[in-house]
Amino acid sequence: MDVKKIFLPESELPRQWYNIAADMPTPMEPPLHPGTGQPVGPDDLAPIFPMPLIEQEVSQERWIDIPEEVLEKYLIWRPTPLYRAYQLEKYLETPAKIYFKNEGVSPAGSHKPNTAIAQAYYNKISGTKRITTETGAGQWGSALSMCCAMFGLECNVWMVRISFDHKPYRRIMMETWGASCVASPSTLTKAGQQILDADPDCPGSLGMAISEAVEAAVMDDNAKYSLGSVLNHVMLHQTINGLETQKQMAIAGDYPDVVIGCAGGGSNFAGNCFPFVCDKIHGKDIDIIGVEPASCPTMTRGPFAYDFGDTVQMTPLLPMHTLGHGFVPEPIHAGGLRYHGMAPLISQLIMDNLIRPVAVQQLETFQAGITFARTEGFISAPETDHAIAVVIREALKAKEEGKEKVILFNWSGHGLVDMAAYEAYLTGQLADHELPQEEIDRALKEIEPLPKPQQFKG
Amino acid sequence: MDVKKIFLPESELPRQWYNIAADMPTPMEPPLHPGTGQPVGPDDLAPIFPMPLIEQEVSQERWIDIPEEVLEKYLIWRPTPLYRAYQLEKYLETPAKIYFKNEGVSPAGSHKPNTAIAQAYYNKISGTKRITTETGAGQWGSALSMCCAMFGLECNVWMVRISFDHKPYRRIMMETWGASCVASPSTLTKAGQQILDADPDCPGSLGMAISEAVEAAVMDDNAKYSLGSVLNHVMLHQTINGLETQKQMAIAGDYPDVVIGCAGGGSNFAGNCFPFVCDKIHGKDIDIIGVEPASCPTMTRGPFAYDFGDTVQMTPLLPMHTLGHGFVPEPIHAGGLRYHGMAPLISQLIMDNLIRPVAVQQLETFQAGITFARTEGFISAPETDHAIAVVIREALKAKEEGKEKVILFNWSGHGLVDMAAYEAYLTGQLADHELPQEEIDRALKEIEPLPKPQQFKG
Repeated sequence: MDVKKIFLPESELPRQWYNIAADMPTPMEPPLHPGTGQPVGPDDLAPIFPMPLIEQEVSQERWIDIPEEVLEKYLIWRPTPLYRAYQLEKYLETPAKIYFKNEGVSPAGSHKPNTAIAQAYYNKISGTKRITTETGAGQWGSALSMCCAMFGLECNVWMVRISFDHKPYRRIMMETWGASCVASPSTLTKAGQQILDADPDCPGSLGMAISEAVEAAVMDDNAKYSLGSVLNHVMLHQTINGLETQKQMAIAGDYPDVVIGCAGGGSNFAGNCFPFVCDKIHGKDIDIIGVEPASCPTMTRGPFAYDFGDTVQMTPLLPMHTLGHGFVPEPIHAGGLRYHGMAPLISQLIMDNLIRPVAVQQLETFQAGITFARTEGFISAPETDHAIAVVIREALKAKEEGKEKVILFNWSGHGLVDMAAYEAYLTGQLADHELPQEEIDRALKEIEPLPKPQQFKG
Repeated sequence: MDVKKIFLPESELPRQWYNIAADMPTPMEPPLHPGTGQPVGPDDLAPIFPMPLIEQEVSQERWIDIPEEVLEKYLIWRPTPLYRAYQLEKYLETPAKIYFKNEGVSPAGSHKPNTAIAQAYYNKISGTKRITTETGAGQWGSALSMCCAMFGLECNVWMVRISFDHKPYRRIMMETWGASCVASPSTLTKAGQQILDADPDCPGSLGMAISEAVEAAVMDDNAKYSLGSVLNHVMLHQTINGLETQKQMAIAGDYPDVVIGCAGGGSNFAGNCFPFVCDKIHGKDIDIIGVEPASCPTMTRGPFAYDFGDTVQMTPLLPMHTLGHGFVPEPIHAGGLRYHGMAPLISQLIMDNLIRPVAVQQLETFQAGITFARTEGFISAPETDHAIAVVIREALKAKEEGKEKVILFNWSGHGLVDMAAYEAYLTGQLADHELPQEEIDRALKEIEPLPKPQQFKG
């Protein structure tokens, strides 16, 4: 029988993260202070992040050592297996070879603990007693809860009320790991109280939850804030995924022609693809595709501009593809792909033509997820279904062209806590949605596009 | 760093199942026909099971080849990793070494696909077009749904109404894999219709759901029925787990002093422990512990007797530990451990003093599950928490005694689709419950104990 899963021995677990900042063909624009408009320095960030993470945020070192304590915890689920999707290939009758990296084997069921465990560790050694964060659908909040438990840290999660009410399982996971989880807006912060005063039935938003979590961290000397995507240090931690994948592809004796991942804030996509982007910068011919929903087309239709990370304009201005900090996407069922912005590193790599963004409609993604579940067994997170939709497109294109392409994608997590989304699809309650141009136009008025940099020439 | 997970290469996947019937120190009593009271022959079972499974049910061959098509599908999640629970050991400050076999990595999240895939395959090659089954909490129904999808079989699941209403995620999983899932009692069968005529609000029971699924299979020449536990062929398929574990323990350079598993119908426990029971029969000194809830104490307090597998007395009489086919356990949150009987093979091994049953209270099991989640990360199924409770007891005993014991347990599945049970525990809604003696006495009146066989002398 052909080998289905490529395991990496624990002794081969990467000992360093890969920092793509060292290889960016176009230097990154700095984040700007929301008040002064001047570049943000380490001291500006010190009230909310511990210093080791701030140092990583601005580091230009290509390789950054992973601490022993983090490696030890990584072993709970890492290295994760790389799978060959034989059953899907057979079903599609494609000559393409399809590989996927299974990040769903972590206890939280997704890639999120890759950075959560590192952030918990650096907070622990910096004297933090308590970490605050926000969560939308709950994947990030649950991952951070687990990792805080492992390092004996208190964890307080503000969860967008509408998800809090409709997704109790994620909340209970957080509580099982010992964290507290409250609906946002809450009465625990001034920001939340103000919002509730104005609208007692407010359903909440990620922007509001960020405001609450940041405020709570700033008000308590023992607390820091933690973010699960977008920032450079988050992308950095996630690269352990792609570094493992490169070793596993070598064991399989293949190299990908196409690398695919879904992108909300960008951390799962970056984690798998950045080591391959490095290869591309150094001459490899790879098509690296980030997939987003057509109803929240940050990468494909949002301008590259300085914008706030949150709705209430508390965070630094980041240079990124954005639909505007006031953008409220349609309630599509992939909660992790509803962010208005995109990680600055990914945004810049799109400008440099090293990453190709693609937007897909919701129904195609669920159909892809169903096909995957009935062939390969695994039920994917709705976010992950976006990647699978494009994998199927590429595999069918390879069939048309008669090419034995190697397609790699990041299976970022399972969907077992998101089954309501599948029910909505199976019972015909979902519809496609394309963002109208006037929404983009409105976003453009809020923000100022950056000058388009010189194109990268490969 | 010490090795945390012991992976078995795919090339080392066992190619045969282990049939403990060949090694039983006391020969098994035959199942009896419910009408005639005579031993059941293959022809009696032919309307509901395909012949290859009937042959396995009565086989005395020690080793049975696993078909290539089943091995190929096993590779989707097997071999599963064996873990060393370093974080739990550290937390308990125990000198014991704790290993667990992680069956939660299957797409269905439990050990159930080990037999579901084999049963789907044998049905497929026997010309079955459609498989019917019942499910309680939904772990079995979802596993069979997935495996039927993989072999292109229709799958119809009758799910106990009270679970159907309260556990929608499991139902949606089944539908995502293409199966139908209806609440039992249903109007689709005579049995269901009769029950509904008498009580339109009937909450259902596993016994009723079995009646419906069996009736549906019998009434359709293209359909067969499938059971996820109790029967010999189910135990047989599950032994792939224990056979892998033995190879992995050898790689780790250890051999267990104690082997622990939770037992409802017995399939997950048998799957892991039967190869070790074989060693024990041949002279090894191992404590093999089956763990059940104190509120459904089949093994510890039920007599060894001939009893029906279902409430409405349609199935053959099986020689087993039982609380009586009319027994209705308290609604504890480990739905998979609420069956009135126990697999005949396990029941016999208890009589022969090769397996030691232990009953535990509900609160201790959830506390154990929380401890496990906060140290090792994984949130366990409530069933699995029963095993963990006894693991912790044994680890603390080893600490008291100052012994470096090797403890192995079967982590039969994750609890991510059972979070409501954790919420009930965390909010103080659960209580302990010990079955009153009058319930046992009542059960004894319904059934006739078998003569106690000569004790096995090791």
